[in-house]
Amino acid sequence: MHYEAAFLSAIQKVKSEGRYRVFARLERDKDIYPLARNHGPGPEHVVIWCGNDYLGQGLRPEVIDAGKSALDRMGAGSGGTRNISGTHQLHIALEKELSSLHNKEAALLFTSGYVSNSATLSTLGKIFPDLIIFSDENNHASMIEGIRFSGSERKIFRHNDLDHLEELLKAERYDRPKLIAFESLYSMDGDFGPINEICDLADQYGAMTYLDEVHAVGMYGHNGGGVSQQDHAEKRLTIIEGTLAKAFGCHGGYIAASKAVIDAIRSYAAGFIFTTSLPPATVSAAIASIRSLTQDNKIRLRHQERAARLKRMLREAELPLMDSPSHIVPVKVGCPVLTKKISDTLMVEYGIYVQPINYPTVPKGTERLRLTPNPFHTDKMMDDLVLALGETFARYRVANDRQQVQPAQCPFGGKL
Amino acid sequence: MHYEAAFLSAIQKVKSEGRYRVFARLERDKDIYPLARNHGPGPEHVVIWCGNDYLGQGLRPEVIDAGKSALDRMGAGSGGTRNISGTHQLHIALEKELSSLHNKEAALLFTSGYVSNSATLSTLGKIFPDLIIFSDENNHASMIEGIRFSGSERKIFRHNDLDHLEELLKAERYDRPKLIAFESLYSMDGDFGPINEICDLADQYGAMTYLDEVHAVGMYGHNGGGVSQQDHAEKRLTIIEGTLAKAFGCHGGYIAASKAVIDAIRSYAAGFIFTTSLPPATVSAAIASIRSLTQDNKIRLRHQERAARLKRMLREAELPLMDSPSHIVPVKVGCPVLTKKISDTLMVEYGIYVQPINYPTVPKGTERLRLTPNPFHTDKMMDDLVLALGETFARYRVANDRQQVQPAQCPFGGKL
Ligand SMILES: Cc1ncc(COP(=O)(O)O)c(C=O)c1O
Ligand SMILES: Cc1ncc(COP(=O)(O)O)c(C=O)c1O
Repeated sequence: MHYEAAFLSAIQKVKSEGRYRVFARLERDKDIYPLARNHGPGPEHVVIWCGNDYLGQGLRPEVIDAGKSALDRMGAGSGGTRNISGTHQLHIALEKELSSLHNKEAALLFTSGYVSNSATLSTLGKIFPDLIIFSDENNHASMIEGIRFSGSERKIFRHNDLDHLEELLKAERYDRPKLIAFESLYSMDGDFGPINEICDLADQYGAMTYLDEVHAVGMYGHNGGGVSQQDHAEKRLTIIEGTLAKAFGCHGGYIAASKAVIDAIRSYAAGFIFTTSLPPATVSAAIASIRSLTQDNKIRLRHQERAARLKRMLREAELPLMDSPSHIVPVKVGCPVLTKKISDTLMVEYGIYVQPINYPTVPKGTERLRLTPNPFHTDKMMDDLVLALGETFARYRVANDRQQVQPAQCPFGGKL
Repeated sequence: MHYEAAFLSAIQKVKSEGRYRVFARLERDKDIYPLARNHGPGPEHVVIWCGNDYLGQGLRPEVIDAGKSALDRMGAGSGGTRNISGTHQLHIALEKELSSLHNKEAALLFTSGYVSNSATLSTLGKIFPDLIIFSDENNHASMIEGIRFSGSERKIFRHNDLDHLEELLKAERYDRPKLIAFESLYSMDGDFGPINEICDLADQYGAMTYLDEVHAVGMYGHNGGGVSQQDHAEKRLTIIEGTLAKAFGCHGGYIAASKAVIDAIRSYAAGFIFTTSLPPATVSAAIASIRSLTQDNKIRLRHQERAARLKRMLREAELPLMDSPSHIVPVKVGCPVLTKKISDTLMVEYGIYVQPINYPTVPKGTERLRLTPNPFHTDKMMDDLVLALGETFARYRVANDRQQVQPAQCPFGGKL
């Protein structure tokens, strides 16, 4: 076997499809955020327009101080898995914070949002051997992985399509264990999941519900409890999943649910059991972040205002803004090669950093730029961004939002 | 469906088997390490005897300072996935540090050692659709998960049994893609994997090799490159995997390999792509930890001396020490209920914290206490420990190391 050649040809395949990923090399700097130092091609400072620390929480003085003080008092690591010397008072305190944020009895920390989805969903398949999982077709890779690893039968329903979901639910025996897995905010399109309507179907057909709130926690609901809080649906959901790495600006993931659910997942999930727990500094920073953010509705309003302004400007400039009711602002290109070219041009010529989003993150033919305005983006930065996008899109002749993007406009036929 | 009842009965099952996990509630404190404040039953301060921060690296001043300075300069989170604004100069620097530590062309960071195993092994199955994986029966849960998720055919070989491995290899077509997955140091028994002998077989039968060095990096080899460094085998291995959370005292996992392997895993592994990258403070602390530890052979020698002393004392006290050539010191009990009782007694009456190790971490019937002496454990602490173990084992009448532990000695027949 020529193993090395096989690895090279796997890389070549990605390259030939125009979706080889080149990571921007940045150096974050609190003092110039949302700018960062750029160590790749382009100017020394660039404006980050695609970060997922949506509210800049990781830069709050009390969050940084909490992390530093934990480092000073407890060191850089937790020292073990949760079971073997790695449960600190801090982990327990953070889990308490999270359960009360989501109005649930209990919560469980994981090392990331990815792991919380993968470990929890796969474990549900062990607890309910006959489980059938109904999964929204746009669910995140980590949910898909968890569902696949659960070994459970799964049915994919068309994105946000309640009729289709009901049709699939109806086809199963009432007493078969069922789970509906979906998101409150789909991160690449920026649209919301119909939480209460899905809970209605779950009630009617006797299903559990699993909601990924990763792109909504901290940002929606009166104190940042997510879309389920805004929709008064927390109590209806079996499991709410979230991350500490996006709006909360730190790291780690979690689920919130009833005591029994949490204790069962805690006792069975390999991805929870067999891994070192989160470091004290991260946990401590996350607690400070949640506490400050639950009390700061102003920053949530400012965030929405920034997003609304940017969308308005893009529409006025007739740029191909994709419909999005949330803080996520996707602009369609429809071809991996063009998306990369535009992104490179924005970085090198305008000092604007927005990463191309290609397959497998989004379906082929819907490649895009995904803008994430945050409360620290100024009017001036927005004006510069929209101007730069206008010039660059014109240069590469990307269709505006009134037209469908034609595959023919992509040198690779949009079909790579 | 009565879902809640099903979760409760899953918990009940674990309880009835005597292996329900109760996490010790600790509060680490740099100033009293290896003691910690205890928030559960027992005295206010306890000696940690089961930590996996084997060398106390997370407490080194330069490690803590590196973390604090990164928090100050860059905030608490990385801001995105590696591809979407989450690659900092720091991540690149740490990957460089790791590749040179292992004498490999390149390295790739993951959010944990667990994820590095699970994501890499499962991805190899995608790159080689016809792959067959030969897996040591004692491999860690995270490797087992990755192998299962690879979808590849797998053959389990008896632990460290070269004849059995060869028999299995021989049975396959020479040109079928093969991978041998094993560990350099098995963390629950403390024995080593025969790295060069396995590489010999890999050469002979045309297989790739995947080595988990999680419990060896930082501690073996002239500058902490692990057992593969000590055995001069780094260049022979296809992939070396490790963690930053144990001897390095921080958090995160990685693989080191050729440029092509790293680039392919980077491009295909969902568990790498779709998750927020490690926070700056963790990455910066890890770099400082590796740099200081590679240069500090004294602490490695002291660590081995501490382990040798403890083993000698346990043997002299005729306690049921399990054979272990490494720094890991397992003491067999052989029953989950007894192990828990002994652990509770040590904590409450002696202020000694050593967590019971039960199924599924170890096979049923081999339940144990797993001691991890570190350079900061004093002679006095060891004397106290061995005394306490002697008294407690006598009280619960656990067999000494000359006899086999009889299942009958366990109130549950050792077969739970
Ligand atoms: C919908 C969704 N769920 C889960 C995750 C994973 O969260 P984390 O970054 O904390 O691993 C992400 C993105 O990273 C996501 O977009
Ligand atoms: C052999 C082995 N591999 C991998 C891991 C996972 O490493 P991490 O704690 O960094 O997730 C562990 C334990 O945690 C382990 O014992």
